[in-house]
Amino acid sequence: MSGYERRAERLAQRVEELGLDLLLVSRLVNVRYLTGFTGTNGAFLVGPARCVFVTDFRYVERAKREVPDFERVRGRDDLLETVAEIATGGRLGFDDSHMTVRAHARLAEKVGDAVELVPAGGLVEELRAVKDDAEVAAIRASAALADDVYRWLIAEHGLAGHTEHAVAQALERRAQDLGADGVSFPPIVAAAENGALPHATPRRDAAIARGTLVVVDFGCVLDSYCSDCTRTFATGEVADDAREVYELVRRAQEAALAATRTGAGVRDLDGVARRMIEEAGRGDQFGHGLGHGVGLEVHEAPRLAPSATGDLQRGNIVTIEPGVYVPDRFGVRIEDLVLVAEAGPQALTSIPKELITVE
Amino acid sequence: MSGYERRAERLAQRVEELGLDLLLVSRLVNVRYLTGFTGTNGAFLVGPARCVFVTDFRYVERAKREVPDFERVRGRDDLLETVAEIATGGRLGFDDSHMTVRAHARLAEKVGDAVELVPAGGLVEELRAVKDDAEVAAIRASAALADDVYRWLIAEHGLAGHTEHAVAQALERRAQDLGADGVSFPPIVAAAENGALPHATPRRDAAIARGTLVVVDFGCVLDSYCSDCTRTFATGEVADDAREVYELVRRAQEAALAATRTGAGVRDLDGVARRMIEEAGRGDQFGHGLGHGVGLEVHEAPRLAPSATGDLQRGNIVTIEPGVYVPDRFGVRIEDLVLVAEAGPQALTSIPKELITVE
Repeated sequence: MSGYERRAERLAQRVEELGLDLLLVSRLVNVRYLTGFTGTNGAFLVGPARCVFVTDFRYVERAKREVPDFERVRGRDDLLETVAEIATGGRLGFDDSHMTVRAHARLAEKVGDAVELVPAGGLVEELRAVKDDAEVAAIRASAALADDVYRWLIAEHGLAGHTEHAVAQALERRAQDLGADGVSFPPIVAAAENGALPHATPRRDAAIARGTLVVVDFGCVLDSYCSDCTRTFATGEVADDAREVYELVRRAQEAALAATRTGAGVRDLDGVARRMIEEAGRGDQFGHGLGHGVGLEVHEAPRLAPSATGDLQRGNIVTIEPGVYVPDRFGVRIEDLVLVAEAGPQALTSIPKELITVE
Repeated sequence: MSGYERRAERLAQRVEELGLDLLLVSRLVNVRYLTGFTGTNGAFLVGPARCVFVTDFRYVERAKREVPDFERVRGRDDLLETVAEIATGGRLGFDDSHMTVRAHARLAEKVGDAVELVPAGGLVEELRAVKDDAEVAAIRASAALADDVYRWLIAEHGLAGHTEHAVAQALERRAQDLGADGVSFPPIVAAAENGALPHATPRRDAAIARGTLVVVDFGCVLDSYCSDCTRTFATGEVADDAREVYELVRRAQEAALAATRTGAGVRDLDGVARRMIEEAGRGDQFGHGLGHGVGLEVHEAPRLAPSATGDLQRGNIVTIEPGVYVPDRFGVRIEDLVLVAEAGPQALTSIPKELITVE
């Protein structure tokens, strides 16, 4: 049984448990996860009795190659018509967190009264949160490539004197040159007070100064899998409070990382870092969650945050990334990508976490 | 009155004509078009009596700068809650071609019985199809930048001996180096039989040979606006039928371009090129529509195709891009970006269309 067949089988079990006859998987990233298909128009119907992949004429040849494991049907221009020809009765689950109101109305009309449409979003995302061995290997390789880019930034490229935008572009190009398909999001390079904005846009208009902190948040895409890593560097001697905040974030990050294990509550884990930052009187300067899952998407399940629920499972791969943002001064964020394994946390990122000076 | 106010006023008129009290604009690209907002979470409520922009705390500062023309409300984490606080009665239009079934259910619950939710997708897209002067200037600049990249490809970089992937990457980097924000889609570079696939993925594993045709399809993003241009080059002497097909496509493209005027039917215009290709016995090798609108998105209204309806309007900017794809041999596509103006078609792309040899 191939890895794709195993994933589809697991999903078919969930579909049956929920009393559905078929589930229509319409988000392309979920179709990719379940079948291997990389085109831009495809759908997958999954049920205990039958799994069918549908795409249009443009991708029939590609699907032969990429989707050998499942029954394939050449669909009409509007794939929902073909879906209605396959799902002729019973309860058909659909992804209500992805399907638009208009597409839903069209599907309802096409399937008619014999089929009951049942909202069933999030099922594939749940499966995707637990990585299998092939996925762990792919994400590990993607993270290792990003680490190589970081080492090059530190040892060869440097920060001070370049614009943030030039550094961001250099990171992206280096990643491509080392074999990445691309970056998992536009790199963040945020110096001094720009670092106080958690999602800063790299500036083109001023060079990074010496003697400041620079937040660099960057990841690769390799074989469809994302990585994600943040480090905060110094461009020379920094102010005492900057160094203090850096050490606070580093300790909070390492404490949370050490607590990242099977069965840990995602909210409790967030609390490990948050409490330390609160006790230092900077709770209001940590305005985001501790982390998120990473895989085919750079933000996926599980979410680690005060408002999140559930426990970590073996095979989750999550970021651990506390930050402290001092308005109009600087920001510090330190982020590792971590595999939740039986034997404890395994960081997939390897760049040191003491404050490194990069001039 | 600012350009944004004019756009909102035009939309408010349509909203009133449709008997709506307010329209909820939720697609970010539409919010960007109407208000200037560039963040990743925002919504715009438009009606004859009131226009309100909503974003969350992260973007309040940015919105002050970017959205000075409209009333601004700081929304809750879930912007739909804030929408429900503003729309307390009457008929509220929503974008059914964008809003998910789940979001719609949440909105319906929040607004309660006092508000009637009315599907009203596509209204902003309709406005966006007709470009105002600022947009024409932006797209013209984006197309001129792409032309500069093409000229560099022809005169300096070359094709033969490079992989398709290396050429695609070089185009993207050159565009960035010349000041583009990025590319409007991953560039297509498709040599020989790969050119027979209209949406080929650039290959990394083999160098482009001499004596073949290469389809290059590439555009820039500059100040949020896209451009789009395709040329097919020869890498030396090509076979007679390749040259023949090239001339056929060139004549079909130029005939369609000449017919691109205010009031022309989008289906008839497609027919101008299609008939010529059919008469040459190659109708089945032109498997896509003649073109599409370009603006904030690289594919937008209007669509030029056998199945499309409507007429061109002054201010449309469309691609004219017939192609002939000879399976397992080669493909030819030639694409200009064209402004539909009172005085006739104005091509925004300027690279010559006789067959150019690029070695």
